[in-house]
Amino acid sequence: MITLAIDAMGGDAGLTVTIPAALEFLQAKPDTKLILVGDEPSIRNALGAHAGHERLHIVHTTEVVGMDEAPQSALKNKKDSSMRIAITQVKDGAAQAAVSAGNTGALMATARFVLKTLPGIDRPAIAKFMPSKGGGLALMLDLGANVDCSAAQLLQFGVMGGELFGAMYPRSSQPRIGLLNVGTEDIKGGSVIKEAHQLLQNSPLNFIGNVEGDAVFSGEVDVVVADGFTGNAVLKAIEGAVKFIGGVIREEFSRNWLNKLAALLAFPTLRGFKNRLDPRKFNGAIFLGLRGIVIKSHGGADVEAFKYALLEAYHEVESGSMAKIEQGIATQMARLNAAAEQTETPAPQPQ
Amino acid sequence: MITLAIDAMGGDAGLTVTIPAALEFLQAKPDTKLILVGDEPSIRNALGAHAGHERLHIVHTTEVVGMDEAPQSALKNKKDSSMRIAITQVKDGAAQAAVSAGNTGALMATARFVLKTLPGIDRPAIAKFMPSKGGGLALMLDLGANVDCSAAQLLQFGVMGGELFGAMYPRSSQPRIGLLNVGTEDIKGGSVIKEAHQLLQNSPLNFIGNVEGDAVFSGEVDVVVADGFTGNAVLKAIEGAVKFIGGVIREEFSRNWLNKLAALLAFPTLRGFKNRLDPRKFNGAIFLGLRGIVIKSHGGADVEAFKYALLEAYHEVESGSMAKIEQGIATQMARLNAAAEQTETPAPQPQ
Repeated sequence: MITLAIDAMGGDAGLTVTIPAALEFLQAKPDTKLILVGDEPSIRNALGAHAGHERLHIVHTTEVVGMDEAPQSALKNKKDSSMRIAITQVKDGAAQAAVSAGNTGALMATARFVLKTLPGIDRPAIAKFMPSKGGGLALMLDLGANVDCSAAQLLQFGVMGGELFGAMYPRSSQPRIGLLNVGTEDIKGGSVIKEAHQLLQNSPLNFIGNVEGDAVFSGEVDVVVADGFTGNAVLKAIEGAVKFIGGVIREEFSRNWLNKLAALLAFPTLRGFKNRLDPRKFNGAIFLGLRGIVIKSHGGADVEAFKYALLEAYHEVESGSMAKIEQGIATQMARLNAAAEQTETPAPQPQ
Repeated sequence: MITLAIDAMGGDAGLTVTIPAALEFLQAKPDTKLILVGDEPSIRNALGAHAGHERLHIVHTTEVVGMDEAPQSALKNKKDSSMRIAITQVKDGAAQAAVSAGNTGALMATARFVLKTLPGIDRPAIAKFMPSKGGGLALMLDLGANVDCSAAQLLQFGVMGGELFGAMYPRSSQPRIGLLNVGTEDIKGGSVIKEAHQLLQNSPLNFIGNVEGDAVFSGEVDVVVADGFTGNAVLKAIEGAVKFIGGVIREEFSRNWLNKLAALLAFPTLRGFKNRLDPRKFNGAIFLGLRGIVIKSHGGADVEAFKYALLEAYHEVESGSMAKIEQGIATQMARLNAAAEQTETPAPQPQ
């Protein structure tokens, strides 16, 4: 049995999205239990006839973190929030993962505070699987948890991303790691990026070098490492492009009656196209580097999208990725530290 | 008459692209002259029967800058390159703009060296008009000329971008300037971004605040200001997304005979869609902040795409944007400097 804890009050729509998604998820995955964390009377009300579902458990909380609330305020003043108590379920072992559509900053701060980071990891990163060439997937991180990143952090993102990808999509070869840069030549980028390039090059990772902003789609790489500022901008740009292009297609197919007729005939094809790129199917960002699984859903997710965030959590638990990542990171960091000690400049001799 | 100088040898394909594009452009725009800069015998050969065209002039050069050549090497060792002599045509007043598909770094270094920057501008930026909501356009800069940017530089990008947008698309209101950030709240971003936000806020620009990576498409903003690292990553991500989505559409419409039939019937619509988003139509990045107009075409541009880079140069010359930008920047910088002097902390008094 896999048990997920849901911040039932989180997100723009709260219970009207989380509860129907939870029920659909329970039906789709018979080997799961769900812990719904939030205001019990409201949850029971939203559940209606399903309130007695045998694989549903409710944990009552009295507070909700606002979508615009500052992370420190949430941490200090909302100790009984649905968000925090959902994460506590993971810490206490009652659930194997927590899912929230609440505000990203507060969720990250709370997850770090409650769960703590893995040994060797300075700061967690936000990672997301995105559709790539030929039906594949690429993992990109960090997507906004760390606006300024050191070279050592970028290396840690490479280690964590590689371990997650390898755990969830095991293959014969090691995951290919690329460093997001303004060009593929080794000498590109600012000083931090150049140093990160060196660290990745000298690491035991399967580092393929610098990649550009289109690498997620090109199929050349499994993991794209970026600082949180650039990663976030790239993610938003891609989401914007998909939405924009979808809008242009709709406009073109409704321009006149002939085009509308064509749309009717092309409907199954257009639906197939939409299905493949539906952003709701890629909902569910992973907080990586914590001692536990936390999945962040888009705040504006609808029922379908939130269900995909639950599925993302399910797949991460099912793959045993957490234990593999923890073990993998420990091994990689030990190797890296040993290598760093060996190459350290010897202390200057007294003259 | 508008005269453009073309680096005829530049780009992956060189003369096989630049010459046919030049001839098509001359036919489309009867009020233009072209100066083809490069190896004269090869150019004459490529021109064939058109070698005697009355609105074509050839300037012979003996060197070509390699697509991977380091900027400093091009600057030092290739003083008679087609790229450099094309830019010299602008400096000497023989042409009003230069267009090259040569390597970006070398083109920028050469353009800065030959033309110099405008007063008040530390470093030029690379800017590009991109398709936005409702058939509009948004200008994004910097797209890779400056990997690390100071807050003052980001402010300069805002000034230059606003002036260019206003000159080329005059409207009743001032262009809306947005600062690329990881969130729209004022407090987002690292220290440089926060400082740039303050500078833009206190400037006479029509600054609408922070925007996210999808702002180019949203129609909320006319100019997106970014450091060259993030701007480049966002541009490449968007280009990658457009290409990827185009590929998925093609795949879906050729999946089986029924879908192929639908594609046939939807052909005019799909062509309309392709026409609107064809990246070739948006070829032609503008080097902004120089004492002269230089347009950079994609290195891999085909004839159609290179023609659009020539059209971009044509429109910039035609709009008189250069003089307006120079004047506008001078005015804005003077205002900004006056404001900065007023708010400067008075020198501490001796005790």
